[in-house]
Amino acid sequence: MDSIETVVELFSSLPTIGKKTARRLAFHLLKQPKADVERFASAMVQMRTSVQECTSCHTFTDREICLICASEKRDRTVICVVEQPTDVMAVERTGDFRGVYHVLHGALNPLDGVGPDDIRLQALMARLGPSISEVILALNPTVEGEVTTQYISRMVSPLQISVTRIARGVPVGADLEFADDATLARALEGRIPV
Amino acid sequence: MDSIETVVELFSSLPTIGKKTARRLAFHLLKQPKADVERFASAMVQMRTSVQECTSCHTFTDREICLICASEKRDRTVICVVEQPTDVMAVERTGDFRGVYHVLHGALNPLDGVGPDDIRLQALMARLGPSISEVILALNPTVEGEVTTQYISRMVSPLQISVTRIARGVPVGADLEFADDATLARALEGRIPV
Repeated sequence: MDSIETVVELFSSLPTIGKKTARRLAFHLLKQPKADVERFASAMVQMRTSVQECTSCHTFTDREICLICASEKRDRTVICVVEQPTDVMAVERTGDFRGVYHVLHGALNPLDGVGPDDIRLQALMARLGPSISEVILALNPTVEGEVTTQYISRMVSPLQISVTRIARGVPVGADLEFADDATLARALEGRIPV
Repeated sequence: MDSIETVVELFSSLPTIGKKTARRLAFHLLKQPKADVERFASAMVQMRTSVQECTSCHTFTDREICLICASEKRDRTVICVVEQPTDVMAVERTGDFRGVYHVLHGALNPLDGVGPDDIRLQALMARLGPSISEVILALNPTVEGEVTTQYISRMVSPLQISVTRIARGVPVGADLEFADDATLARALEGRIPV
C-alpha cells in the first residue's frame, strides 16, 4: 500500500470521517508545507504523551490536577458526575455551574460487560467525604446512563449527601410537535410550578 | 494553550472539519493506545516526505514515475488533463479510460493572480510530441476550468493533435426537473444522435 493510501486508511478510522473526506484530508496535507505537517504530527504525539487523567476528577488534562479542580473559585462541595471529558466542556459552556466534576469514562453496561470496576466509580466514592453537600448526576439520557444513575444514587444514599439528576425534557428552541413520546412523557413528569 | 486545544485547532484547520468534530477527533485519539497515535503521526510525516510529483504526469506518487505512467497497459498517445491528483482517481474509478494523465495542480484564475506559469502548463506542452494523438480536457465545470480549457485548446491547436473536452450535461440518475438552467442548456447543446 502506498503512503497516501496508508494515511487515507488512518483518517477514515476516525469517527465521523468517511473514505471520501479521508482522501480529501490526505491530499490537503500533501499541499501543506512539510514543516506544518510535522508540527501537526508532533502535536498529536505530544498531546497523547502529556495528557493524563486529573488525579482528582479524572478529566483529561496536561497537569496532575486539572484547571477546574485547582481553581480557587470553584465550589468543592458540589460534584457534577459526567460520562466523558467532552461532557465537562459541554457543562462548562453553559457558564452556570460553579462546582467541580467527576468523569466516569463510561457508563455501566452489563450487556457489554462494563461493570462498576471498569469506570471511575470507586474514585467517586473516595471523594464523597463529609464536606460534600450535593452530587449532580449529568449522565447521558440512554439506558446505560439510566442504569448508572440508579446505581450511583443507591451507592450514595447511605451518606448524608443529596443526589440530584439533570432534568430531561423538551430541548430549548425545539417544536413540541416534533418531540418524541419518551421525551415528552419525561417533560410532563418533570413539570415545575411557574 | 494546552496540548488538547492545540490539536483541536490543527484539526479544525483541515477542510470540512468544524470545531465540534475537531474536538471529537482529539478526544478519540486520547483514548487510543499511544503506539497507534504515534503510528498515525509518523504515517502523516512519512507521506509528506516521500510523496512527490510524478516527473511525467505530475500526479502525487511515492515513486519517480507513477504507477499509471509506468504501466505497459496504458495508451501513451492519449493524455487526459485534470486539475488535481484527486481528479485522476475519479477518472480511474470509471474504469473507462486507458490513456495517461496530466495534472495541472490548479486552473488559470486571472483575478486571483494564477497565471500560466503557476500551473503545470509548460510541462504539458513539453509532452505533446508527434506520438500524441489526443488531448482530453477534463477540467472542472467552473469559470476557471473554462478559461483553462480555452487557453490549452488554443495552445495545442497549431500542433496536429485533436483536443476534446468531457461532456457537460444532466448527471446520470438526476431528475431533469431539478437540473439547473446552465446545465440543461449545455446538455441540449451537446445532444448526440441515438
